[in-house]
Formats: sequence, structure tokens, C-alpha cells
Amino acid sequence: MGNRIRMGLVGGGPGSFIGPVHRIAAELDGEIALVAGAFSRDAQRSTEAVHGYGIDPARAYPSIEAMLQAEAAREDGIQFVTIATPNFHHLPAARAAIRAGIAVMSDKPMTATLTEARELAGLLATNPVPYGLTYTYSGYPLVREMRARIAAGALGAVRKVVVEYNQGWLAGAGEGKQAEWRLDPARSGEGGCIADIGVHAFHLAEFVTGLRVERINADLGTVVPGRALDDDCQMFLRFEGGARGLLMASQVMTGEGNDLALRIYGEKGGLRWSQENPNRLEWLRADGGMEVVRAGDAGLSPVAMRGTRLPGGHPEGLLEALANLYRDFAGTLRGEAGSLVPGVDEGLRGMALVATAVVASRDGRGWVDFEV
Amino acid sequence: MGNRIRMGLVGGGPGSFIGPVHRIAAELDGEIALVAGAFSRDAQRSTEAVHGYGIDPARAYPSIEAMLQAEAAREDGIQFVTIATPNFHHLPAARAAIRAGIAVMSDKPMTATLTEARELAGLLATNPVPYGLTYTYSGYPLVREMRARIAAGALGAVRKVVVEYNQGWLAGAGEGKQAEWRLDPARSGEGGCIADIGVHAFHLAEFVTGLRVERINADLGTVVPGRALDDDCQMFLRFEGGARGLLMASQVMTGEGNDLALRIYGEKGGLRWSQENPNRLEWLRADGGMEVVRAGDAGLSPVAMRGTRLPGGHPEGLLEALANLYRDFAGTLRGEAGSLVPGVDEGLRGMALVATAVVASRDGRGWVDFEV
Amino acid sequence: MGNRIRMGLVGGGPGSFIGPVHRIAAELDGEIALVAGAFSRDAQRSTEAVHGYGIDPARAYPSIEAMLQAEAAREDGIQFVTIATPNFHHLPAARAAIRAGIAVMSDKPMTATLTEARELAGLLATNPVPYGLTYTYSGYPLVREMRARIAAGALGAVRKVVVEYNQGWLAGAGEGKQAEWRLDPARSGEGGCIADIGVHAFHLAEFVTGLRVERINADLGTVVPGRALDDDCQMFLRFEGGARGLLMASQVMTGEGNDLALRIYGEKGGLRWSQENPNRLEWLRADGGMEVVRAGDAGLSPVAMRGTRLPGGHPEGLLEALANLYRDFAGTLRGEAGSLVPGVDEGLRGMALVATAVVASRDGRGWVDFEV
Amino acid sequence: MGNRIRMGLVGGGPGSFIGPVHRIAAELDGEIALVAGAFSRDAQRSTEAVHGYGIDPARAYPSIEAMLQAEAAREDGIQFVTIATPNFHHLPAARAAIRAGIAVMSDKPMTATLTEARELAGLLATNPVPYGLTYTYSGYPLVREMRARIAAGALGAVRKVVVEYNQGWLAGAGEGKQAEWRLDPARSGEGGCIADIGVHAFHLAEFVTGLRVERINADLGTVVPGRALDDDCQMFLRFEGGARGLLMASQVMTGEGNDLALRIYGEKGGLRWSQENPNRLEWLRADGGMEVVRAGDAGLSPVAMRGTRLPGGHPEGLLEALANLYRDFAGTLRGEAGSLVPGVDEGLRGMALVATAVVASRDGRGWVDFEV
Repeated sequence: MGNRIRMGLVGGGPGSFIGPVHRIAAELDGEIALVAGAFSRDAQRSTEAVHGYGIDPARAYPSIEAMLQAEAAREDGIQFVTIATPNFHHLPAARAAIRAGIAVMSDKPMTATLTEARELAGLLATNPVPYGLTYTYSGYPLVREMRARIAAGALGAVRKVVVEYNQGWLAGAGEGKQAEWRLDPARSGEGGCIADIGVHAFHLAEFVTGLRVERINADLGTVVPGRALDDDCQMFLRFEGGARGLLMASQVMTGEGNDLALRIYGEKGGLRWSQENPNRLEWLRADGGMEVVRAGDAGLSPVAMRGTRLPGGHPEGLLEALANLYRDFAGTLRGEAGSLVPGVDEGLRGMALVATAVVASRDGRGWVDFEV
Repeated sequence: MGNRIRMGLVGGGPGSFIGPVHRIAAELDGEIALVAGAFSRDAQRSTEAVHGYGIDPARAYPSIEAMLQAEAAREDGIQFVTIATPNFHHLPAARAAIRAGIAVMSDKPMTATLTEARELAGLLATNPVPYGLTYTYSGYPLVREMRARIAAGALGAVRKVVVEYNQGWLAGAGEGKQAEWRLDPARSGEGGCIADIGVHAFHLAEFVTGLRVERINADLGTVVPGRALDDDCQMFLRFEGGARGLLMASQVMTGEGNDLALRIYGEKGGLRWSQENPNRLEWLRADGGMEVVRAGDAGLSPVAMRGTRLPGGHPEGLLEALANLYRDFAGTLRGEAGSLVPGVDEGLRGMALVATAVVASRDGRGWVDFEV
Repeated sequence: MGNRIRMGLVGGGPGSFIGPVHRIAAELDGEIALVAGAFSRDAQRSTEAVHGYGIDPARAYPSIEAMLQAEAAREDGIQFVTIATPNFHHLPAARAAIRAGIAVMSDKPMTATLTEARELAGLLATNPVPYGLTYTYSGYPLVREMRARIAAGALGAVRKVVVEYNQGWLAGAGEGKQAEWRLDPARSGEGGCIADIGVHAFHLAEFVTGLRVERINADLGTVVPGRALDDDCQMFLRFEGGARGLLMASQVMTGEGNDLALRIYGEKGGLRWSQENPNRLEWLRADGGMEVVRAGDAGLSPVAMRGTRLPGGHPEGLLEALANLYRDFAGTLRGEAGSLVPGVDEGLRGMALVATAVVASRDGRGWVDFEV
Repeated sequence: MGNRIRMGLVGGGPGSFIGPVHRIAAELDGEIALVAGAFSRDAQRSTEAVHGYGIDPARAYPSIEAMLQAEAAREDGIQFVTIATPNFHHLPAARAAIRAGIAVMSDKPMTATLTEARELAGLLATNPVPYGLTYTYSGYPLVREMRARIAAGALGAVRKVVVEYNQGWLAGAGEGKQAEWRLDPARSGEGGCIADIGVHAFHLAEFVTGLRVERINADLGTVVPGRALDDDCQMFLRFEGGARGLLMASQVMTGEGNDLALRIYGEKGGLRWSQENPNRLEWLRADGGMEVVRAGDAGLSPVAMRGTRLPGGHPEGLLEALANLYRDFAGTLRGEAGSLVPGVDEGLRGMALVATAVVASRDGRGWVDFEV
């Protein structure tokens, strides 16, 4: 393993989809190695999981607490944990790690509720350890390119932001393990679609523009009868400085896959990007001409180049985008600056979005201030 | 000319863009001939215009009143007028024609204000003549195909509608003849972007789904400083039966051309269409597969086939879409049924949208009922 | 009709697809009017056809000879003919018109055989009248833009040309009127696919680059058993100056519609265009960036602007492309210069291509010189 | 490392592009670990390279021979080597490994010349060890889906194959490490573009159709003056059973990135796939309709599903495609059947293609038999 940073995984037991994704992405650039896990609260299942990850069965634990304790006693013990569990477990897992002085990389949303998020933020304030949130899509090189260009003034003042995240996989009854916990408020939290993918869209809008949302007007709905949580969201946004925005997120747009797309317009031009074809960025000039930028080509900003492993025309994908977050996080653990991994602030803003939008929409309140 | 239906044009003087468009579209299928015009209120300019249209200079008039009077005296006089003027002239021109018992094809929006629209509707109620509105985009064969498929139940119950109309040509100062009158409330009316293109989007949403909007939550804004009218609109829609909708229309999305696009999702699938590539319709299946339908191919609905002149792979465009409206209108004038040309009802709904959205957005009212 | 140029149509009888296409395109810009026709050699069918065209039944004739004679006696007689018949009738029809001193617009290919084409060229040399060939695709504004850019040196020396014309409609048995005569050597001539669409591709390659092909290596084949003519062609090209080229044309690429596409590469960049989405031109820069040019946008060359009726984002299609040829042809008839309509030279080159490729491919000769 | 299969890398020294690509892909699925390397023939540079790979400096060697010897003495020694060097070193490296009884995964083309390839094949015949070639693109799940569908008869008899591989990076002078050795016959071998990317295209055509090429007609050229090897290739193919094919490969199509694309047509439909957007497969139906298949969606063939880590809409890329080859190879090393990794036969065919095409084209021979 050389001097790879050692990672422990919370969640990701047998049959998990997201566990292997974290392993691949974390290890992709050779800076991190998964060496231990609390894969399941069922000790036997946790041990079974090691086969898929290729790790020592002795380092499979039935709980994060057990893992933290045992690993602390090893010379080659874990140096950070990744939390890849349903939302309701994010806080207790993070709490345990933070109290043990262990850095945390967590799936979004930060927690199940805003109250929990505030507790977690307080805990980190008094027990500072590196804390990152896997808003995966912000790891795409061309998303980072958009951010760099806008920061450099390429668009002039930003005027209009359209961000959408369209899925269709919950247009039916929503069977299967993935659907089940997301549709259950006890495990998912206050928001359904808004918490699962709306926060991704919201984060991207703020990340790319560098602007904070100040007011929202939310319209959340439940399209499939019998659900306790929203499955379709639309929202007007108003950013600091007055830029206008629109956010769509839905899990009932039948036939859509993972259509996360971002369009930003300013005085001098526009930028369009779509996650399903992520190695292509469109730059709209004010004269109507369009330039297509390809990931990996010369001339991109340093932050985009750093997140690209292959030359133009050789596609990279979502695993590589997540790997970019892990690479940044590894840098932080080594004491380097420059990480773009979202943290506490972004986490709190996401949870505040869920809480604010759910209440404002339910009460038909129209425009409301957005504060954390 | 054989037995072509004879048309008189109001507007379309020298330098006009839309006048020649109406001539081409009206004459495209050989059923209508432009034979007279009140092209300009300046008599000399009106006469100059005949060169571009290839008509007899004696049939160029300085006003619609003069045209109606002189043409009524001819055996081969005009049988209908097309009104292609700035909005504020729609009502007086239509009023003159209707009082003369002459059919009217009018550019949208119906009038400059809802009050005027109601006057026009009243006039038509007591003086019935064929009246059509050139909501051009509803003439595209694949738009009609969407309507036919939804009416036939292909989507099951409609759940979500996203319609957008993105332009960038007013992102700058807005110079030129086209911009000038549109930015002037005295000539454009109560709405800016909402009246110019928002009503197109709104009409398409209702036309294609066959559902009426019952409530809206509108966010209109003026992005370019100093303008008296909105230049960017976003709106939540709620349709009869509960379907959720989103409408975007903007003229300040820098670099966008004429990006009108429609997405409709129901229980059983989704449909996507975009005006900039209008001969392609995407049918999203619930299993994630997508089928692409090509205009002109076998198997389309009769209403789409009727509006297609060329086989699949041979592109038709906007002129042909408008020609489809004219062909329907010619059928109406010949006493045939089956026209899909929008009329008074659609016109009133568009004007009510403008009036309702402008006020509700200005006052920050959130959700309001939408009634004509 | 004002002073429109008067056109007579040869072919285009009841049920014809191409007849109405010619009428629409010829009349689109208001400079030409179809007034007479030899629509069918069956007098009754010829007369029936007038209904679809809206012309005087007295001006329907049973033969081009009858039409030429009768129309010559009228003050408002036809000024040119369009020949829209199966290939074997191109020569006799053109011969009759030329001898009568009447200008000719003819469907491609020029004739059924190279021998016939030479006869026609000889006839025109001694009896000069305006003669045009409807290589329709060269009328697209962005095709003309490519030509203008290459002529202006935007690519530097042209190095590589890839032109393809992929159809699938003859992948099956080939039923229907359109298929029947094309598969019959007696009516179609020496070539099948090569004569029907290969010549389009060949013409485009020479038209756009401004370079002449000097050598070819052809591989023609008959994929569907039992056919007397080729239905799939592939060909290497060598242009004057050494540029390398590849030409594909097929009517058996199952599922393809009318996929004519052109790619040209030079020292400084590349250009890509596809007929199925014709309002978009891709300019590939040497650094890997791509710029997308939209028909109708400011900044295009005058020749492209002249062929565009609508601003960027408002699609035009094949009828408008053909109308551009008719507009040029009308200009020629009025004595104006600047027409880009292909004529005798392009016609001869197309027929020589058919003759050369058919023989060279059959005999497996590899590279052969290409001469007219 | 658990029980991961241990890999040694030949090549991939400091500054290498392809070395890290092999490490990422080999380790991606957690079945293989890079543990040693002969990264450079300069011992110091070889040792420097370990930092990038995170391996023990003691396991960096100055030659494959040194690596094989030292690793053979370790209990945890390497189990296979990956050869990622310029072409001329493929044979000596493979020879050393094979003689040591160590399995080989090699970059394509197999060797620098056909003679060398035959030597290598002979060696493997007498010293059988697992031998794989990284024809990376055949690892894409949708390429494997095409193969599976065609094998299952979805197209009926294959009639026409169009494979193209368009790059532009050698349109200029060709500076840099990557270009330098490829343009040098001493290091690259008999072919330039044909050996570098033409063999990829050729392999894909045979891999996907399951048909062998029997005759070719090749046109190789050198576009940029002063080069000793071809930089642009076009070729007609004839497959067993008579299917017709076309192969394009170029490194001088200015502005193109890595545009490898495949189109296959049969009696019942067509398939289109493009590497630059690799998670999308187009199925053309005989009726003109098109279905778009998305990688990761339900309903794909088992072989495609096995090569997909993420659900539909979550892009995977080239690293994952190469990882699929490594996963298959790991299976072979564990004694499992079912690998789709190309081997000796595919390697010989590629080298025979280079040798045959270079000579036949140079001599202008037209059609020639293609034999290994």
C-alpha cells in the first residue's frame, strides 16, 4: 500500500451500490486505500462484505464505534472514514468519528434534518477535523471549469441560472432497496426528492456561480399517490446581487435517467453543461456563436486540468469526478490547500434548503428568505 | 391564380421581416395568394412594398380601412386579412375586418391588453367570422404528433410539463426595429417577454396536453436596467387534474437563439421536442429506453402526416409549420372542419396569462388562480 | 402573378412526390410562377394534375412538345421548363426545350448515360439557353458558407474530404413508384445508387472544396439479391493538388433516412455539416476547440446570408435550399450574374463518375483516372 | 492487498501518460494490484516512478529481465506483466515474460512487424501463458452489447460495416513524446496511423460482427510532408459471407479528438456507436424509427451488464472500458472462462493488416486477399 491514506467505510454492505463506488473513486488515483469497514450492523454481513472489497476480514466491524476503537489501536489504522449510509445515520456516524478525532467524508445530504446538521456543525466547531461532503457532480472537470471561468469574469455579471436534475426511476411504485429508504421519512428525513437530488442541483448552482441564494419560492409536490415525501420540486431562486434562478428536480419524469444540467447566463455569454455527456461544455457567445469545449483539451483552467486524466476525446465519467473529490480530500489530510470539496457550510445550506422549501411549499408561502 | 383564396396583408412594409414570412407560408401549398396589402400607413411606402411581394401596385393601400373598402368593390377582392403589425394595432385592424365581414388571421398575442382582447372576443361573438392566431409553433407536425399521442393516452395521465422558450437577442441594449416596439409598452402592451414569447410557450403547453392551466405562480423580471417591461419570466403552473408545470421564457439568455422546447411526462412515458431541431421527437419509455421519431416517417398520426411534405430525413422548418396553420385556415374558409388553428379562446387565455402574471409577479403574490 | 417568371413542369403527374416539391420551391420567393405542365403522357392524367397545382386546366399538356408549341403562341407563355421525370426522359425533354429556345432546369443526374449527357452538352453548345441542374443540397446556406470559407482560405490547403450519403429505404424489396423506376436500368440508366445519390455527394465535394477529382478507386456493390444496378457504393477520391477523399453512398443502410454529410479538413481546421440538421455548421479548430455556426446568424458570408430567410434558431429546410437554386436561376433568366446553380459541366462530371465507377468497379481495376 | 493478482508494469516511467492509465484500469475493480515495474531502462528514472504509483522503491527495476528475476524470488512476486512501451519493445518484453512463464497483457499493436508477431505467436504456441492485447475500445459495454446483439441475430445477416477512427493531433508538426516515437519507423514499425489506430478500428469491426475480413483495398497516405509513415488511411473491406465494409483512420483530420465510431447494418436494422459519447447506442429499425440504448439500463445483455458499474445516466468512460479487459484477464488468471480480451489471433490479424495494407497501397494494387 506504500504510503496511501487509509480509509474506513461506514455502510456499503453486501448488495450495496454506493459502497463499491466509493472504493473505486477513493482508490482511483493511488493516494487512498480502503482498509477497513463497518459495512453492516449485522456482524456476519459486515464480514461477508470484505470479499468484494479485497480487505482483511479482521478489519470488518459491526459498527463504526467498534471500527474506530480497533483501528485506533493499530499502527496502520484508518485515517478517515467515509459515511455511505441512509441519511438518518449520517449524524451518529459522523459524531462518533469526530469525537475520535478522525476525519470524515460523508454522503450528502449532511444529515436527515436541519436540526441534526446544526448539531454536527457545532460539534465540528469544537472538535475540528477535516470534513467533506460528496457532492459528486462538483468534481467534474468541466463543472470546475465553469466555476473558474465565471470567477474570472468570462460571463460578466451572472444574470440567470437554470439548474435541473431530472430522473424517472421513482415514476413507478418505487421498489427495491434504493427506493425504499429514500421514500421513508424515518430514514430519509424531511425531504424526499429535494433532499436526495435537489440539494445536488442547489449546490452546483452556488458552487459554479460563486453566488449565494438569498430568497426562494418553492413548489414541492408528491406525484405518485401515497408517498409521505416530495418526489417533484420546482423552485425560483434569487441570488445575492439579484441574479434570477430556476431549480428543477424530479424523480418522476418518466424515462429520464440522471439528467443533471446547468445553464448560466451573464452579460457577456452563457455556459451549458449536462451530466449525461459530461466531457463537453458549451460556451454561448453574445453574437449567437457557440464554442464547444472538450474536457482534456489544452487551454482549460488549471483546476479543470488537474481533474482530468485523459486527453480530449477520451471520456471520463462519474467515478473520476468522485475521485477528484477524494484527491482533494487526500490533499487536505496531507495538509495541502486548494481543496474544492464541499464541507460544513455547503452541508448546512443544503439542509436549510430542504427545511425551508418543505415548509414554504406546504404552506403556499410564495417567496421566503433563505437563511441557514 | 386559379381558385386560390385571396389574402390581404396588414403590415409587412419595406424592411419588414414578418411580412415576407407570412407571404411565403400562406402561399406555400398553393391554396392562398397574397393579392393586396395595407403594408404601411405611409402610402408611398405601402406602394413600394409591392415589389417584394410581386403584387399589383394598385392594390397597395395606406390603411386597412382603405383596403377593405376598395377590395370589397372588386370581384376578385380579398377574402381574408393577415394582421402582422405591432401588438397595439391588432385590435383596430381586426375590428375593421370583422365589421366588414372579412376573416382574420392575426399575429399573436391577440391584442395589447386583456381589455382589448375581451372587446375583440365580444365583437367576434356578435359578428362571427373565421378568426385565427398564428401560434406558429403549434403547426409543426411533431408538435401535433405529441398532441395526438397524448390525446390517445400514450402517456397515461399527464403529470409534469416543462416548457421553455429561451432567447438571447435582448441581452444587450436591444437595438433595431424588432426590439424597439417590443420594449415600448405603448406598442407592445402590458407584457414584454411574457407577451412576446411566453404566450407561445403557454399555448403549446395547453395545446399539446389538452389540459387547461388553473393556477400560476409567476416570477417576471427585468434583467437589463432601464426597461419598462419584463425580459425574463419563470412560472409554476398547475393544470386541471393536478398536473404540475414549469414555464420559462427569456429574451436575455445570452447566446440562445430561438430555443423553444417542450417536455411532457406521464405515468407511462415522456415526450421531448425542441424547435431548433424540429423534425425529431423523443419518446422516453418507462424502462429508460428512448425512441426517436422522425417527421415524415410512416406510422405518425394522420394530423402529423398531413402537415409533412417530405419523407423522413428531409428537413422542413418554421415556414412549413406556419404554412400548416394557413392550410388549416384555408380549409376553414372553404367550410371544412378539422382546423387546429388557435382562435379566440386561445387568444383570450394568452392575454389573461399576461395580465395575471404581470400583476401577481409585481405584487409578489405567489400562487393565484388563473381565469380568463 | 405580377412579373413572375413563368415556369412549365415536365413530369409531376398525379401522385408525384417531386412535382409539388418543385412548385413550392420555385414559387417560394415570389419570383417564379408555375403556369403550365406536361404532367403526364396520359392527357387525362395531365389534366387531373392541375388541381394540385392550382393552374388553368387549359395549360395541362400531354407532352413537352405540345406544351412548348402551345405556350409559344401565348403572350404569357412559359419562360423555362423544369424536368422532373425519371432519368431516361431527361435528354428528350431537355432536347425539345433547348431546340425551342426555352431555358431548362433539370433534375439530376443530367441524363441516363454519359453518351446522352455528351449529346446534351453538344446541343447546349450550339443552342445556348440557361441550363441548371437541381443538385438541391448545394442550395443550403451552410453548404455555401463552407464553400465561401474554403475559398477564402479558412482551412488552408484542403487535405481530406469525407462525403457520405446514407439511406436505408431500399434495404427491403424496394416497392413503390419511387423504387421501381430507380431499380430499372431502362429508366434509371447505367447507375443505381451511384446515379441517384452518389452524384449528389460527388457534386457537393467538388462544389464545396472548389477542387476537381482526378482519380478514383471505386467499389460498387449490389447488396439486395436480384438487382441489376448497384445499391451501395464506396469510393476513394484523389483531388487536384493531392487532397484525399472518401465517398460513401448507400441505399441499403437499414434505418438511415437521408443522411448526407460532409467533412472537410485542411491545414488550419475542419468543417462538418449534416443535411439532417442543416442549420448547424461545425468549425473544428486546430487546438481541438469547436465552434458551431448557426444559419441565419450575423457574420456569415454574403452568399449564405442571401440564402437565408429567417434569423438564427428558426429552422429552414430542404424546400428552402431548392428555392435558393430557383432564385439563382431566376436571376440568370433576368440577366443577373452570381448564380451558383450547377450546369452542364457539373452534369457531365456526374455522368462521367457513374460511367467510370460502374466499369472500374465491375472490372476490379482499383485506381483509374477520372476524366469527362 | 488481500488476494489481489499482482502485476508488474513494463514502461510507464516518469511523465508517461499510458502507465498511470494501466494502473488505474488494472486496479479499478479491486482484483489486481500493481506491485512492481520496469518503468524505465534508466535505473534512476525507474525508481523515481514509484512515487506516482505508490509502490515499494525496491520493486522498481531497470529492465524486465531484472524484474522477472527478482520477483520470481519473492513469495509475493508478480503474476503477470503489462507491456506499455513503444511498439518495437513489445516483442522483447513479451519474449522475456513468456520464457519466464509469466502471463502478458500487452499494448497494441502486437509487435512492430508481422515477422515479429509470428515469432511471438510461435513462442506462445510452445510456451503457453495467458496473453492479452489491450484493444481498449472492445471493453466498452455497449460495444460488447453490439457484439451480443449481432451474434443473437438482431440485424439478420450483416451487410455493411463502417468503422472510422478520426484524430487530428498529428495534423501539425507532431511534437512531443507521444508523437515522436510514433512517427519513427524504428520504434513504431511498418505502419504509422494504420498501426496506431487503424488496427483498433479493424479489430472492432471483426469483434463486433463476428466476421473475418477476407479481402481489402487500401489507400494509405502521408499528408504531412516529410513523414516516413502513413498518417491517413482509408480501406474497403470484404468480410467472409460477402458483407461490405469501409475503414477510415486518420491522425490528420484537424480538430478531431478521438472520434472512433462504428456503424453496422444488416437486413433487419442498424447499430451506431461513437466512442466520444460511449454510453449511448443507437438501434435503427427498418421502419426508420430509432431506439437509443443507454449503458447501465435494464435489458442489456449479460456481457454488457457485467461491464457496467453504474446505472443508466451515470457516465463511465475509457478507464472503465480498459478495466473491463483487466477484469476479464484476471478471470483468466484465476482459471475462469468467458474472457473477451483479444489475444494472439487478434494480434496477428492486426499485424497482417498493417503489412498487407502498407504494401498493397504503396504498389497501387487495388483489391488483395487478406491472410494472416
